[in-house]
Amino acid sequence: MNPTTEAATAASWLTDDEATDAHRALRAYVGDYRDLGAAMALLGWDQQTKLPAKGAAGRGRTMGALSTVLHERGTSPELDRLITAVEEVDPDGPEAREWRRNFELSTKIPAAHVRRSSEAAAAGYGAWERARANDDFASFLPHLEDLVDIARADADFYGFETEPYDALHDLYEEGSRAADLEPMFAALRVPINRLLDQQPEPDTSILERDWHVPGQERFGVEVVSRLGFDFDGGRIDETAHPFCTTIGQFDTRLTTRYDTNWLPMSLFGTVHEAGHGIYEQAFDRLGLPRTLAGAPGLGMHESQSRGYENVIGRSHPFWEFWYPKLQAEFPEATKGVDLDAFVRQINTAQRSLIRVEADELSYNLHLAVRFELERGLVNGTLAPKDLPEAWNATFEKWFGITPPNDADGCLQDVHWSGGSFGYFPTYTLGNVYAAQFIQQAKADLGGSDQWDTLLRTGEFGPIRDWLDANIYRHGSAFTGRQFVQNVTGGPVDTAPLIAYLEDRFGQH
Amino acid sequence: MNPTTEAATAASWLTDDEATDAHRALRAYVGDYRDLGAAMALLGWDQQTKLPAKGAAGRGRTMGALSTVLHERGTSPELDRLITAVEEVDPDGPEAREWRRNFELSTKIPAAHVRRSSEAAAAGYGAWERARANDDFASFLPHLEDLVDIARADADFYGFETEPYDALHDLYEEGSRAADLEPMFAALRVPINRLLDQQPEPDTSILERDWHVPGQERFGVEVVSRLGFDFDGGRIDETAHPFCTTIGQFDTRLTTRYDTNWLPMSLFGTVHEAGHGIYEQAFDRLGLPRTLAGAPGLGMHESQSRGYENVIGRSHPFWEFWYPKLQAEFPEATKGVDLDAFVRQINTAQRSLIRVEADELSYNLHLAVRFELERGLVNGTLAPKDLPEAWNATFEKWFGITPPNDADGCLQDVHWSGGSFGYFPTYTLGNVYAAQFIQQAKADLGGSDQWDTLLRTGEFGPIRDWLDANIYRHGSAFTGRQFVQNVTGGPVDTAPLIAYLEDRFGQH
Repeated sequence: MNPTTEAATAASWLTDDEATDAHRALRAYVGDYRDLGAAMALLGWDQQTKLPAKGAAGRGRTMGALSTVLHERGTSPELDRLITAVEEVDPDGPEAREWRRNFELSTKIPAAHVRRSSEAAAAGYGAWERARANDDFASFLPHLEDLVDIARADADFYGFETEPYDALHDLYEEGSRAADLEPMFAALRVPINRLLDQQPEPDTSILERDWHVPGQERFGVEVVSRLGFDFDGGRIDETAHPFCTTIGQFDTRLTTRYDTNWLPMSLFGTVHEAGHGIYEQAFDRLGLPRTLAGAPGLGMHESQSRGYENVIGRSHPFWEFWYPKLQAEFPEATKGVDLDAFVRQINTAQRSLIRVEADELSYNLHLAVRFELERGLVNGTLAPKDLPEAWNATFEKWFGITPPNDADGCLQDVHWSGGSFGYFPTYTLGNVYAAQFIQQAKADLGGSDQWDTLLRTGEFGPIRDWLDANIYRHGSAFTGRQFVQNVTGGPVDTAPLIAYLEDRFGQH
Repeated sequence: MNPTTEAATAASWLTDDEATDAHRALRAYVGDYRDLGAAMALLGWDQQTKLPAKGAAGRGRTMGALSTVLHERGTSPELDRLITAVEEVDPDGPEAREWRRNFELSTKIPAAHVRRSSEAAAAGYGAWERARANDDFASFLPHLEDLVDIARADADFYGFETEPYDALHDLYEEGSRAADLEPMFAALRVPINRLLDQQPEPDTSILERDWHVPGQERFGVEVVSRLGFDFDGGRIDETAHPFCTTIGQFDTRLTTRYDTNWLPMSLFGTVHEAGHGIYEQAFDRLGLPRTLAGAPGLGMHESQSRGYENVIGRSHPFWEFWYPKLQAEFPEATKGVDLDAFVRQINTAQRSLIRVEADELSYNLHLAVRFELERGLVNGTLAPKDLPEAWNATFEKWFGITPPNDADGCLQDVHWSGGSFGYFPTYTLGNVYAAQFIQQAKADLGGSDQWDTLLRTGEFGPIRDWLDANIYRHGSAFTGRQFVQNVTGGPVDTAPLIAYLEDRFGQH
């Protein structure tokens, strides 16, 4: 074991035998709370995968009724008392920290404001859908103004040290600050633009052939099973918008969607969601206390999904193992296509307008644009009415191109319409963390050649073992930034991501 | 409209405008209660259709946690007060009756006894599975003794006038009594046995051909859609044990299972569950108050599933419409088979040992056996240890044959292992009610010839309209026996069922 990873593998939580009665009591309460939360998770999963059209209103009421029950349990005096008891015996332990934080976040917002937020988000989502369809920012503006007002009030309720934006971003990535994100994005701008300048005109003609859905289903299941997703504790279903959700203990579900003439949609979507799912499944498999059985934030979660999807899943050695199997499943679609041509086509990159269709190289620039703009909105330095103009100027700054309209500009994403501000940077944090973790994993597992051999032979066990030891088994005992420090021995750093992107996309 | 159906079509509940504040308050409370109950229904549906194997234990805890929440709401002093308020303004109305009954049933059993019941049922189910597999009644006996003890205690908690059995049977079919069931079954014994004696050796070779699953899926959806099941407010999925469940408002789900070499499994199973589902969907479609938006009991529910499955779904005119469509979907399987041959094969009957595999003619005798035995167990006149012997003697009495072992005898059904006593007779009540209702519907719709013409032309609308007016729109405002009285102008009567069975299975 590499000395830098010693901290990461030291025990981060007390076993059942080591735990005090206070720990055990908190764990039991949280276990019940999470068991009941499983009903809510199932209602959400079903809403997106199975719910009949006419059932939407009733489902909304059911989720509202259950969220009230859960809110009571998550803000109860009993929970407060149980956390206090752990704080008294183990003030620096992760369980006290995690649950005091959860408790405070749940109790800081007054009920009337919570209601106002839900209503604004529901109205905002509908207005946004129409505004985007009609390229009509003006019709969305009153909603955006209301949502930004609410977000700014949220920030005041939560509290912050430096700027309001930090209060909201912290909800998604504990301990991360705008003052850290700004240099992170700045460091990526020049290298990524230089690499984008070097890319050839993308050719994805192979990926647009006829890839029949039953074959995609079989192949996707085979790939993610071998990566480590356990179908005895999970499943995969179709949805319009793919996601991964953990319902309850040993029940983690992926979703995907299929396009016969666009292989990457389901293939890399499934591997991405499986990256989330393998992480989620690890907490029960490794027996974490229920208090810590989760990821500490979205950046860490994205590090796993993006690590599997891109760093591992689009690499040449990975496809040395999988391409013959793809050929066997799709003899027609792969006819006359050699491995190198296939790998080239799954790794094209170019500047484009739409984030959700972007490749992994340009993707980070899309987040930089959103970070700058939502920071301005929440901090009050950008008025919602000025968003379209600011979007185009900021897009020009990062990409060197200007969107032709708002539908493909500031109206393209759902997040703000639902009141989510401070979420976007976690995607790039995921890419940064993933590159740092995998650089360390390669070193710990014997170097790049040995790593490539693992992928080339389909031996993913040692990689998952490394993730178990360094990341998964600590659950939410550390923040994302602490994980980076523990695992790599240094702070969050964009250099490994830039090096990885240069290796993947540079002219060789 | 026939004069006998006037009572059935008179308004059975107050519209929103007519309702008092007391009604509205109770309806709102019950609406919330049922909205939350939808989460429980979804957990159950998912458990049987989608849940990954390892998720079972967590799911059990989630359902336990939520059932506690629901129990609190169903037994709260607030609900008691709301019911009392309705009783004061509308003492004879169906809402007061229904919810006072629900409230009392929920509050009569002490919590410790509820827990003992759940534990005994869980242990009993596992023991029963093993005992049946090993034909080992002795290993199940201690569990059965415990379950019967509990059932007898239940009867004492609920209370009864004549015999303990009535208290349990009343849970499934309000107002029905063992003293009524005994002559009902007795009236069926001779006519059914006479018809069974007349049946030729069953030939079902056509149904065992290769009926490919995608075709069965398409055909099943087409049939039940046309019968009136609304897939915008419902869906169909695969399970090991088919069922129908309403999750929430406008969300009613069927399940089925497919056997490539046994067409009736899915085809008639789907029509059966759709009979339940069309009934369930009607309550929201017709805008019933949430207090009454359900069937009054299992007998009424079975009258709909068995009416659609057997009386309608296996009739000659029904297949005059559907058989050409079946031929188009399955040109190979139907090759050389004419309509009459097909209808003959879906209407074979014979004495057999296993209830769940029995035809509609002999099915009632299986229930008679179970009614006699469970009545004895609950009333204390039959000791659990004597069940195998009593089973064989009773089976001999009703069928004239003796089971060769307990696995195919007293161990064949799941019900008792889970503590369900008093449930079995509702299947035959469903058959009796169905025959009475359809006899009346035929008369109201212009006679048998006109009825046959509707089936022959696939015009199921008038039948559903009749059900809407006479049954569905009253929800649970009446009991099953009251429905029979209102709709037919007379009491529960086996004569229409016997006439129907003689028509279907008699020598012509």
